[in-house]
Amino acid sequence: MSDSAFSKDNRWLLPEGVDELLPGQAGQLEGLRRKLLDQFNSWGYELVMPPFIEYLDSLLTGTGHDLDVQTFKLTDQLTGRLMGVRADITPQVARIDAHRLRREAPTRLCYIGSVLHARPEGISRSRNPVQLGAELFGHAGVESDIEIISLAVSSLRTAGISQPYLDLGHVGVFRGLARAAGCDAAQEAALLEALQRKAVAEIDELLDEAGIDQPWRRMLRALPQLNGGVEALDHAGEVLAEAPESVRQALRNLWGVAAGLERRLPDLPLHFDLAELRGYGYHTGIVFAALVPGYGSEVARGGRYDDIGRVFGNPRPATGFSADLRTLVQVSDGVPTATARGGILAPWGDEPDLMRAIEALRGEGERVVQALPGQQGGASAQGCDRRLQQDDQGHWVTQPL
Amino acid sequence: MSDSAFSKDNRWLLPEGVDELLPGQAGQLEGLRRKLLDQFNSWGYELVMPPFIEYLDSLLTGTGHDLDVQTFKLTDQLTGRLMGVRADITPQVARIDAHRLRREAPTRLCYIGSVLHARPEGISRSRNPVQLGAELFGHAGVESDIEIISLAVSSLRTAGISQPYLDLGHVGVFRGLARAAGCDAAQEAALLEALQRKAVAEIDELLDEAGIDQPWRRMLRALPQLNGGVEALDHAGEVLAEAPESVRQALRNLWGVAAGLERRLPDLPLHFDLAELRGYGYHTGIVFAALVPGYGSEVARGGRYDDIGRVFGNPRPATGFSADLRTLVQVSDGVPTATARGGILAPWGDEPDLMRAIEALRGEGERVVQALPGQQGGASAQGCDRRLQQDDQGHWVTQPL
Repeated sequence: MSDSAFSKDNRWLLPEGVDELLPGQAGQLEGLRRKLLDQFNSWGYELVMPPFIEYLDSLLTGTGHDLDVQTFKLTDQLTGRLMGVRADITPQVARIDAHRLRREAPTRLCYIGSVLHARPEGISRSRNPVQLGAELFGHAGVESDIEIISLAVSSLRTAGISQPYLDLGHVGVFRGLARAAGCDAAQEAALLEALQRKAVAEIDELLDEAGIDQPWRRMLRALPQLNGGVEALDHAGEVLAEAPESVRQALRNLWGVAAGLERRLPDLPLHFDLAELRGYGYHTGIVFAALVPGYGSEVARGGRYDDIGRVFGNPRPATGFSADLRTLVQVSDGVPTATARGGILAPWGDEPDLMRAIEALRGEGERVVQALPGQQGGASAQGCDRRLQQDDQGHWVTQPL
Repeated sequence: MSDSAFSKDNRWLLPEGVDELLPGQAGQLEGLRRKLLDQFNSWGYELVMPPFIEYLDSLLTGTGHDLDVQTFKLTDQLTGRLMGVRADITPQVARIDAHRLRREAPTRLCYIGSVLHARPEGISRSRNPVQLGAELFGHAGVESDIEIISLAVSSLRTAGISQPYLDLGHVGVFRGLARAAGCDAAQEAALLEALQRKAVAEIDELLDEAGIDQPWRRMLRALPQLNGGVEALDHAGEVLAEAPESVRQALRNLWGVAAGLERRLPDLPLHFDLAELRGYGYHTGIVFAALVPGYGSEVARGGRYDDIGRVFGNPRPATGFSADLRTLVQVSDGVPTATARGGILAPWGDEPDLMRAIEALRGEGERVVQALPGQQGGASAQGCDRRLQQDDQGHWVTQPL
């Protein structure tokens, strides 16, 4: 390839982390999109479509700094106010529940749509994921967490991800310990960061600096080891026996969710990790991630976030999950396509008999392409495996090529 | 409402021209989305999904200033290059045809997705339309225009817009006359603008200033009157008898498309307007708009734009149409919803028999909501009209409420 050809090619490169889907790939995405929305609907989750842009102060409410740096900013030419392109749909759906719908009863909502990330992140490094998810508002018990996690796992199975495993934690364990120990916000943030990396030496240093006394010191130090199968929960019960009631309540909560999941999804491997605190800034209870062996990043994530409605004047318990449709297609064992395979090449013309025959075939879901006079390429170039022809009696009939 | 309640409400207002869809509305949109994509597929149009953002120089290629002012600009934090949020998907699809697919044969592509407009425009004043459309690349004859217009009209009918009428023009008529008359680019643009408004006195002034001689003067002055039913084309043939060959070719082209449409869609009212030049900057042939009595703006538009692939190193004839899914839902006589109506309220629990009964009902497309322990509201608050109960033999059966 010559330099000039390369530079011409280069001119149309998409930005890093931004991709597009060509025929075939797009059909797969559409097929899975429909199956998942149908599944959400069959579980009672109502579809909403929040807007792609909002005023920034509305968009970043309750989600903190993490979302701020990921959010593209735009100026509204009509008002001069700053707008943002959504980097996450969950806060928008929480706004709809709290501010637009204002129902008393439990409200199940689902969504799917593009989001933009200012910086590439995660293993896919995608800046234009197609986020889908489901949120259950208005119920604080473990049952709503169990339902949401069951739906997340069922969705993955629908997507052809048959053997996910689940990583479960609860932000209330660390939060309760840090507060009982008298950590200030900066100390809590530093400890959280070191805990996520299970950096034990650093945790010791931080505990020294903050002058954290026993028994909190012992319990906080133990968190990085509190992970594994259900035996890790037993172990946590012993290690945290002297912890404040909020911490012991968080553990009971984890137990309750785990027991419910084992009854509903007996073949789902559960892994507990009390130092894994995804989305700590906005979650308030259970947090979880679904993972797939061999794929180095989570394929779905979620948790409880009871406080998010408060800023909208309507505090409601809330739990939910989200995933990226493109990641699901990529990780899937096989995704059906929404579009018909093959097709029928029909001659050009507008005789009523021909047009009726074409319309009838299309009505049956067939893909019928009319050949254009003088066109390049034949039936196979149009993806067709059959041909519409007149038989001896003048009837239009489909023939294999 | 108190002032403070108002200001709290106000805080979550969406920007002007930006709207969101709540349950019900979103289901309608999804239902129509599927029907239209299925229809495009049945006509042989393959789905593509271009990205929401691209580098600005790629995004604005071949579309000129109109799209520039409508495009939100973003800076890529990775490269410092300017990116844009798409205001139109058509140029992206043309890039995919010319640059990514590079096929010789006619290529039929379709798309649906959000676009953003920096300023509200049109009767809906929407800044976040959901643009859908179909494009046919690689064929220059009237047959591809006829197919695209037929597909546009069929799509409107699928959307429950049963009686659209069609406004047809051809940019080659004015373009050929203006160039034959020796107009420079500024004069051509000023004349075009006055013609669109049918501002006859202004047209006279512009012709004076530019010193346009007969017979061009007479023909350019006549354009605002050349509109109406098919008799307007007869009249145009007489008035433009001395016009350059390119102008007469444009008229023959219009005749050919009109004749084909009359055979295929005999009940579609056709209206011709040789001064109506939508998208003049990027169209090269037939231009059309579909309108609905009582709705003051077009509901679909399109035309031929043979030059757009040139900048991508692969000039291809092209014709297509686009519409806004939200406008279609709004104008429709009635749109089906994709989501099931009503539903079945099931008790909470995880006994295998109950879970199997729920799963079976969901598999049949039923909407089954499990009641959450201690929840607010009953079956009707969950949109349910039936209940799952155990009968005397302990079988789970659906009962009306």
